[in-house]
Amino acid sequence: MKTQYYTASSLDGFIADRDNGLAWLFQFSEGPPGDYPEFLEAVGALAMGSTTYRWMLEHVVRLGTPTPQPWPYRQPTWVFSSRPVPEVPGADIRFVRGDVRPVHRAMADAANGRNLWIVGGGDLAGQFHDHGLLDELIVTIAAVTLGSGAPLLPRTIASPPLRLLSARVYGEAYAQLTYEVRRPVTPPGSTPASATSRSLPRNQGQPNG
Amino acid sequence: MKTQYYTASSLDGFIADRDNGLAWLFQFSEGPPGDYPEFLEAVGALAMGSTTYRWMLEHVVRLGTPTPQPWPYRQPTWVFSSRPVPEVPGADIRFVRGDVRPVHRAMADAANGRNLWIVGGGDLAGQFHDHGLLDELIVTIAAVTLGSGAPLLPRTIASPPLRLLSARVYGEAYAQLTYEVRRPVTPPGSTPASATSRSLPRNQGQPNG
Repeated sequence: MKTQYYTASSLDGFIADRDNGLAWLFQFSEGPPGDYPEFLEAVGALAMGSTTYRWMLEHVVRLGTPTPQPWPYRQPTWVFSSRPVPEVPGADIRFVRGDVRPVHRAMADAANGRNLWIVGGGDLAGQFHDHGLLDELIVTIAAVTLGSGAPLLPRTIASPPLRLLSARVYGEAYAQLTYEVRRPVTPPGSTPASATSRSLPRNQGQPNG
Repeated sequence: MKTQYYTASSLDGFIADRDNGLAWLFQFSEGPPGDYPEFLEAVGALAMGSTTYRWMLEHVVRLGTPTPQPWPYRQPTWVFSSRPVPEVPGADIRFVRGDVRPVHRAMADAANGRNLWIVGGGDLAGQFHDHGLLDELIVTIAAVTLGSGAPLLPRTIASPPLRLLSARVYGEAYAQLTYEVRRPVTPPGSTPASATSRSLPRNQGQPNG
């Protein structure tokens, strides 16, 4: 099970323009990158912020219009929102707020071994990263610059840096870069923070966790 | 002859951190991408802004230290600066300010068919683009996010979008994306703006340029 932030971005690091728009992304005749169905198939649970959710309500579900569409995900979705937001009939959506850690545990329970998709925005992905809960970034870079907008990931992740796993090209429109989030190096002889180092005898010369 | 903006960037679109630092870039044992010597060999003239120039004085030339180094480029370099900046002994550096167009012409004359390298920063590259003078973006994306800093290219280039030409991977550190700047589509029968349409007789039914 991996927790993945899978998103599209401009070359200069914006996931939406300054009006929260995506016209720059949907102009490409190529459509979404070819890996998307395969990616989604491996996802067991989703999380998104309220801006992303409201964008989907308006542009995908089109709630309140004469031709509303179903919620596109069959997997359970957690929506972080501090204010009430409209619900989608028939969709498995759970509204939450605050700390991402208990939500991550609930998502993992529901996903049953499949991956967890952090849909966005950037700050929500950053909150998962802040708690060491983000495993991969998969960024589909569209061939545009926006100059301003919603930031891809408003965090400094530089020490240790990310690890580039692959680069894929989709036509003239997209370059998809996949990164692994490195864990901080554990000193030799010590145990990872998640292990029960306290159960080891203290008198064997082990450095303290 | 192409005018190329060749630069390193974080994944989230910053070419320097908020202190104009590049430690995030130079941490990689891989060194600069392997194409750099080949790229530089094809360059006939360079342009850079004063922040880039001052960074080079401090970190590369180390002017005023016990061990100053020579200016690293044999090609003529134009430095845009509105204030006086220190000169480098023995280097072919021309200090300019203002409109990039006459500088581009002078660079092209000096380059003698070779490429023109816009070293940075982002706004200077944007000024060349504003006047239709930028042909390619070559961005070496380092495997870090910075969250803030000096923007890669503070412009909206989305209609038409860029054209992705290639993606190259250098180890676990760098993905290098090369883009062509598309020219706006010229309607059939009309002449490009740079052509001398006024020299054509007006009575042949040509649309006005």
